[in-house]
Amino acid sequence: MSKNSPALKIALAYHEAWKNHDHATAMKVVADNVTSETPFGRIEGAKALHESETGFARMLKGATMVAAYGDDTTALLLYYTHTHPVPSVLSAKYFTVENGKITSIKALFDKSVFGTK
Amino acid sequence: MSKNSPALKIALAYHEAWKNHDHATAMKVVADNVTSETPFGRIEGAKALHESETGFARMLKGATMVAAYGDDTTALLLYYTHTHPVPSVLSAKYFTVENGKITSIKALFDKSVFGTK
Repeated sequence: MSKNSPALKIALAYHEAWKNHDHATAMKVVADNVTSETPFGRIEGAKALHESETGFARMLKGATMVAAYGDDTTALLLYYTHTHPVPSVLSAKYFTVENGKITSIKALFDKSVFGTK
Repeated sequence: MSKNSPALKIALAYHEAWKNHDHATAMKVVADNVTSETPFGRIEGAKALHESETGFARMLKGATMVAAYGDDTTALLLYYTHTHPVPSVLSAKYFTVENGKITSIKALFDKSVFGTK
């Protein structure tokens, strides 16, 4: 773990708030023009990201961190997402941070476990 | 990137050989009792891992690294896997390294892009 990474601190602040069903707090470290690449498609902008995650929060139970790394401008988290339909979903998120705000996210999980394709 | 990470050096040696369709060379840094968690299930032991990756190599065209991090005993890679059926598949691999050999791998991608569920 690179605990002195500025980007990792931002990523973990986002992740902790997200995990605790407080995506409004998570958004405090997200840039307005954030872009997010997800298994369900590309999400453009902070408003769309917040709407998407607010919807997802209904199935979210929590998360267990496996690994967290970062450097000055990027961070990469690996964790199990716990959801109501699927107890444990291995997940990764890669963050790019500029001026203390997240400007891009790549979110990765196997969406087939949710019965979608 | 944590270029001085011993585990990252091992992980990158594995990844480079894997990417170049030379999984026999990749196996040189893998412990006999390696366990691998993949979207298609758990793989136990070096022989089974080698057989699985040798099969996968038939659809593998290459890979483009996005991020690579590591510390003394673990490493996490994020990359796009280029395959014949699907041009670009966001993928992560998390490695645990002991005594210079990979003892566990968590492999993550959205297997639904291959039309499986």
